[in-house]
Amino acid sequence: MISQLIEKIQKTKAPVCVGLDPMLNYIPEHIVEKALKEHGETLKGAAEAVWQFNKEIVDHTYDLIPAVKPQIAMYEQFGVEGLVVYKRTVDYCREKGLLVIGDVKRGDIGSTSAAYAVGHLGRIQVGSQALPGFETDFITVNPYLGTDGVKPFVDVCRKEDKGIFVLVKTSNPSSGEFQDKLIDGRPLYELVAEKVVEWGQDSMDQGYSNVGAVVGATYPGMSRILRKLMPRTYFLVPGYGAQGGTAEDLRHCFNEDGLGAIVNSSRGIIAAYRQEKYERFGAEHFGEASRQAVIDMAADINRVL
Amino acid sequence: MISQLIEKIQKTKAPVCVGLDPMLNYIPEHIVEKALKEHGETLKGAAEAVWQFNKEIVDHTYDLIPAVKPQIAMYEQFGVEGLVVYKRTVDYCREKGLLVIGDVKRGDIGSTSAAYAVGHLGRIQVGSQALPGFETDFITVNPYLGTDGVKPFVDVCRKEDKGIFVLVKTSNPSSGEFQDKLIDGRPLYELVAEKVVEWGQDSMDQGYSNVGAVVGATYPGMSRILRKLMPRTYFLVPGYGAQGGTAEDLRHCFNEDGLGAIVNSSRGIIAAYRQEKYERFGAEHFGEASRQAVIDMAADINRVL
Repeated sequence: MISQLIEKIQKTKAPVCVGLDPMLNYIPEHIVEKALKEHGETLKGAAEAVWQFNKEIVDHTYDLIPAVKPQIAMYEQFGVEGLVVYKRTVDYCREKGLLVIGDVKRGDIGSTSAAYAVGHLGRIQVGSQALPGFETDFITVNPYLGTDGVKPFVDVCRKEDKGIFVLVKTSNPSSGEFQDKLIDGRPLYELVAEKVVEWGQDSMDQGYSNVGAVVGATYPGMSRILRKLMPRTYFLVPGYGAQGGTAEDLRHCFNEDGLGAIVNSSRGIIAAYRQEKYERFGAEHFGEASRQAVIDMAADINRVL
Repeated sequence: MISQLIEKIQKTKAPVCVGLDPMLNYIPEHIVEKALKEHGETLKGAAEAVWQFNKEIVDHTYDLIPAVKPQIAMYEQFGVEGLVVYKRTVDYCREKGLLVIGDVKRGDIGSTSAAYAVGHLGRIQVGSQALPGFETDFITVNPYLGTDGVKPFVDVCRKEDKGIFVLVKTSNPSSGEFQDKLIDGRPLYELVAEKVVEWGQDSMDQGYSNVGAVVGATYPGMSRILRKLMPRTYFLVPGYGAQGGTAEDLRHCFNEDGLGAIVNSSRGIIAAYRQEKYERFGAEHFGEASRQAVIDMAADINRVL
């Protein structure tokens, strides 16, 4: 699977992932109003607004990028109706030729992780049928429960040619509270990184492993070290743009061959029309604003590679 | 919210939670066959079997127990159809007067955790309406991202009178891989425990906090220390029964007043009819087997309190 991502990154010349994390207040009023008029002030109405918003952004960006990353929480907040739209978004993006990284951050004891792995990356056996739940290409995984909580995801990756990104060093302000704690003189995230390499060893797909890592753009000193610790691990890098990470901060996430990382931006792309820089497009043309924001982001990153 | 749980525990004299984690292979054949006959070999058919199974178990146990804990992964594996049944199960249990602990183990950066918190414990604003997504009373939370990833859950608890259980020391074999690592001479899970106390300080509900902790039954030496570190924190204790934890192992999870913990059993209750001990009930009467297993479990735990 990771080789497919690399191929798409090379084709688009954009190591860029668009985060489809639609908060209701990012969505232009005309879209929300129309959806609520049609379905009432209901979860279905809200979810419909999310879907219309996503579709417009995907239609305006799919030819420029290798992948999208829907954050499932932004759908789950609308209950079942939201998850219907999560699935519709995943399916639509894949139809458009995009790879889909489900940002689900799941992780549990072995048998439970196996159920998540099946539901998001694999197929569940129902009688004689093997059926997919949410058919994403990659998901993100939380490592707090250790190897037996991560292994079922790794196994499904190998079986179904899928990929995962394990949380190593996250981009949020208090990520250091536990992740940076020193264990025999080394931060916890380095130990997790070593485990990620170990977990990924049997799942190499050409030069890189299908077991990747989440490494936040907001801590550039740490990403330099992590790059060295995990040379054949692909990084999914959140935190660029709205969260404060700059292109300079990203440089060390990449290997010398210009590969090794894909950078996510959510708000900076999907709510671009609300930035001064793109306000000329207007709320009616938010999709075009997102397109321009993707072009600018790819140029910004390529500048430092 | 925690005071409601305590009241129900005192009323039922059973600090017991039934884990509604239905793997398809736990469900008696006659139920699966009927559901697949009606809906075909589809996700909907599988989910219908899960629902019929759950309903029978709840109908046979709701008067004996304070709470149930559906593991959302076991529903998510069937995609949207599974989540429809997750919601139906949650709603049905609450109608029956049970408290529902959604075992979702969510946790992300602040804004994303806020969306999960709203979706599982709170209400989302859609126009003039504040609507619930999955209306559970408690959920489990993963602390790997630190305070700003947990805080939104704590905030919703206070606002909506709900509760959470934060993963401190999990019951699985490799939980020690990261959780037991020593930081300045003390294991990581103790640091997490101290944070749990801090997060819960402003959310006291009579004697205990609405911010609880997950502490596995399989590591009794550790639960003794954690009990002392978190005297006013309620423990949700997985790992009893099928995972290997015994009543003796649980003793130290409780305070001297006999409160302070609720013990979960999933397989041991819901698949009781498959144990030699309960095979006299037969697969047709699996609900009665589960009822007897609950009675036996409560007696077993009360024996050591």
